[in-house]
Amino acid sequence: MAKRVKISFLGGVGEIGKNMTCIEHGEDIIIVDAGLTFPDNEETPGIEYVIPDYTYLLNNKSKIRGIFITHGHEDHIGALPFLLKDLDVPVYASPLALGILESKLKEFKVEKYTLYPVEDRDVIPAGKMSVEFIRVTHSIAGSYALAIWTPKGTIFMTGDFKIDHTPIDGKHTDLTRIAEIGEQGVLLLMADSTNVEKPGYSMSESNVFKALDAQFVLNKDKRIIVATFASNIHRVQQIINCAVLHDRKVALAGRSLQKIVDIAVDLDELHYPEEAMVDIDKIGKYDLDKLCIICTGTQGEPMSALTRMSENDFPQLEICDYDTVLMSSSAIPGNEKTIFNVINNLNKRGAEVIYQALSEIHSSGHACREELKMMFALLKPQYFIPVHGEYRQLKQHKELAMEMGMGANRIFIAENGNSIEIDPSGIRVGCNVPCGQTLFDGKYLVEDVNGLISDRKALATNGCVICVVNFAPEAVSQPVIVARGITIPEEVREEIITEITNEITSGKLKEAGLESGKSFLRKLIAKRIQKRLDKRPVIVPVIVE
Amino acid sequence: MAKRVKISFLGGVGEIGKNMTCIEHGEDIIIVDAGLTFPDNEETPGIEYVIPDYTYLLNNKSKIRGIFITHGHEDHIGALPFLLKDLDVPVYASPLALGILESKLKEFKVEKYTLYPVEDRDVIPAGKMSVEFIRVTHSIAGSYALAIWTPKGTIFMTGDFKIDHTPIDGKHTDLTRIAEIGEQGVLLLMADSTNVEKPGYSMSESNVFKALDAQFVLNKDKRIIVATFASNIHRVQQIINCAVLHDRKVALAGRSLQKIVDIAVDLDELHYPEEAMVDIDKIGKYDLDKLCIICTGTQGEPMSALTRMSENDFPQLEICDYDTVLMSSSAIPGNEKTIFNVINNLNKRGAEVIYQALSEIHSSGHACREELKMMFALLKPQYFIPVHGEYRQLKQHKELAMEMGMGANRIFIAENGNSIEIDPSGIRVGCNVPCGQTLFDGKYLVEDVNGLISDRKALATNGCVICVVNFAPEAVSQPVIVARGITIPEEVREEIITEITNEITSGKLKEAGLESGKSFLRKLIAKRIQKRLDKRPVIVPVIVE
Repeated sequence: MAKRVKISFLGGVGEIGKNMTCIEHGEDIIIVDAGLTFPDNEETPGIEYVIPDYTYLLNNKSKIRGIFITHGHEDHIGALPFLLKDLDVPVYASPLALGILESKLKEFKVEKYTLYPVEDRDVIPAGKMSVEFIRVTHSIAGSYALAIWTPKGTIFMTGDFKIDHTPIDGKHTDLTRIAEIGEQGVLLLMADSTNVEKPGYSMSESNVFKALDAQFVLNKDKRIIVATFASNIHRVQQIINCAVLHDRKVALAGRSLQKIVDIAVDLDELHYPEEAMVDIDKIGKYDLDKLCIICTGTQGEPMSALTRMSENDFPQLEICDYDTVLMSSSAIPGNEKTIFNVINNLNKRGAEVIYQALSEIHSSGHACREELKMMFALLKPQYFIPVHGEYRQLKQHKELAMEMGMGANRIFIAENGNSIEIDPSGIRVGCNVPCGQTLFDGKYLVEDVNGLISDRKALATNGCVICVVNFAPEAVSQPVIVARGITIPEEVREEIITEITNEITSGKLKEAGLESGKSFLRKLIAKRIQKRLDKRPVIVPVIVE
Repeated sequence: MAKRVKISFLGGVGEIGKNMTCIEHGEDIIIVDAGLTFPDNEETPGIEYVIPDYTYLLNNKSKIRGIFITHGHEDHIGALPFLLKDLDVPVYASPLALGILESKLKEFKVEKYTLYPVEDRDVIPAGKMSVEFIRVTHSIAGSYALAIWTPKGTIFMTGDFKIDHTPIDGKHTDLTRIAEIGEQGVLLLMADSTNVEKPGYSMSESNVFKALDAQFVLNKDKRIIVATFASNIHRVQQIINCAVLHDRKVALAGRSLQKIVDIAVDLDELHYPEEAMVDIDKIGKYDLDKLCIICTGTQGEPMSALTRMSENDFPQLEICDYDTVLMSSSAIPGNEKTIFNVINNLNKRGAEVIYQALSEIHSSGHACREELKMMFALLKPQYFIPVHGEYRQLKQHKELAMEMGMGANRIFIAENGNSIEIDPSGIRVGCNVPCGQTLFDGKYLVEDVNGLISDRKALATNGCVICVVNFAPEAVSQPVIVARGITIPEEVREEIITEITNEITSGKLKEAGLESGKSFLRKLIAKRIQKRLDKRPVIVPVIVE
């Protein structure tokens, strides 16, 4: 039974092969990551999360041997609260990833689950396959690449990674083991493409300290507020270290940050002297220049601590001339406008804001070109699928592999939903698997995604016109026209009512019956509004009787 | 009568002091620029343009001596088709700006207007003031700074500018005249802050040629498509020159580009041998590697030529493996996602895309820090108002002026709607003027901006629930619930209908009358949907009788 290994990309939107990947051989399935994406407000207005469509997994429940998590970021674990309600399978991940996951599972009231913490080089059997966890550095502690041992050869998935030779916790990317695995032979490499557009090497996380320290010196008379990603525990560690060095108390602003810090302290991933920390409610006791506030909100998220501070809506502190805000982050493409808004507002309230244009107080968690080459050189794979990126980035990663000497026929650029079949004799595209966005709207998963979203977009652009006609025998109301999100001038409204009234008086509308009558009304109103206002609102005709 | 000079900022959204400024002394008003902004789809969904609120000008019609245009970009002339319908005042501008303006006036069917072309150092009297046009370089030909001579001193407005010592048309920023004016004494400088975050000097437009040429050499076997801003005539000139040098025919894709090229050729601002150009409909006659297509769409605009090509919706050409697309542009913040989408799609169809991450084939039209300092040093103003930027940029420009030795009390950061009064003895804030966004939606200017926009946002995020109740004596219909942009599960719908039916049966709803009845229905439905679905749709109750 010479079955090929099948790799299915179940991830959601935007980036390819990121949120969830399914590795299948014979009767065994391994799931790598189960993440969500935060929706684009323009693309999917009103939606809270987008999770991968996991119909394929539900259809193959009995084969699933486990979910293997590379690291604890939302886009790699965020779908688990949904998935674990439907699938009773063990989850393997680093203690930090599991800590963050457990807090989410509590929040979503998931009660039944089996979590296994893993350590460096742990090998987990999964049917006829097995999975080895290989330490990598990234912008969150406890990150792993995965070596998946299959009967057809080794599949190496880098996860999100960089090669940082001076990581904060001293836990290096395990180049030694990666080299060994490469030497034993790798059938397929799937590697992070996020920073393929960036030449050279990524900056070490340790370098951030120097820039932070310089800012603490420059701003010695100011209150210092540092914004960063809550999950970047090593960054938080460095900010705390810097504050302690400069004799400042640290306060945490924002619940998500407090939560992750608590988890990291419990797991011994974060260390500071007890007296370094003060409660955000008690910062009033300290001089401004003796304080360092750490907060979230680097992407201008509406409910984040930093955004609320910028709008003077954060009860524990009011931004003033004595504040310097350090944005220890970079903008995720698409967020620039929102971030600049927050910066403008902080500036208006008197704060200095140091952001990327001004100073290097951030380092990316993803490998740049030379690191990607290093990974490729050590692993020497037979086949290559670039993942974690938009199409243009995967294409550039493909070209990088070709520069390294690999033939184009050994590289495959996938799309979400693709299934790839591979064995030492070749790589080919199999049947697509069900894949797509599952949208979480309020408390429900949306069923008719296309209908809902296209309605919302139409409502946003053109508004809505409601027309109610009463067919009851003794009805006295004229047709009623209500408009929301579109302004209908009085004369246009009267034209429409007159036209409809004529159709009622002539008896034509009643003859048509309810359904045709509605369609008739819809056309009549659409035509008139398009002609007079050049708009195409959603039209809702209602006939009562 | 020692009247101060009053400067009012009537501009619209985002940047401050950009779209329209009003300079007033005694009985005379000068308007500088009258531009529009393209709305943010998230902030003002469905809106086509945002133009400044010019109520203040309508209230002071008789004082207006003229509209003085710095250059022909949309954000400086785009409001004129509206303004000139209401105000019969002369417009002064460079021939190219007037050419572009006239074509717009035709499009908007404005028939009555007076346009005066100006040349370098022309001085136009305007009541007791006068306006001198000083040549500057920018990303459109025919750009001017303005020196406004008032009885209280000289006001110098840079407009959008850079200091390019090797401009394509040989028309330099008139540093000599600027130095002279500085020497005579400048009361107030208002200067472009767009690139204040960028150190050093902007690259000369001429340098782009070298990068373009290198790309033409590298891609000698490909069809080359170059995307740029239509109005950047000098860039278009360089692309054509490069194509001619490499023995390629040039075709223009997109009507706006063709229109501006025609205007520029007529005005002798653009030159090429007749035989260099071919009609886009006839490119089929030429080998792919003998063609250079120039097109618009650098910001991923939905209807632009490049976006349509990326979606295989451009009839005259189909993107393929033989295409290289050069993005001769940079991303306007906020457009990154859309632009990357276009690039991904071009890549998927086989094209190579060279964008800023990969090569320097664009130069900005705005002065960087050292150029801003040069302008400041030459003009030596008594007072300074940084303009053309968001708050954070104006703040940095203020700090730059302070580095140059100016006291903070001589610098004023304005907001749109501010009126500043100035004379040699001081600068102070006067009463605000009416100011705000006037939105153009379909064929109408929106009156209740806030109501309309908040309705559209609510509709986009939460959808709309319509509830119709029939009070007619012999009505037979149950209450009707229609939802758009929100999914109401059947059991929730039934709960709502039951609840309403109970209220009808009990007679309470009828007693309440039409208005209270509607408000009662709205609350009932909102409460139930919030509780069951955690959504807050727009609720439209309709009672007919």
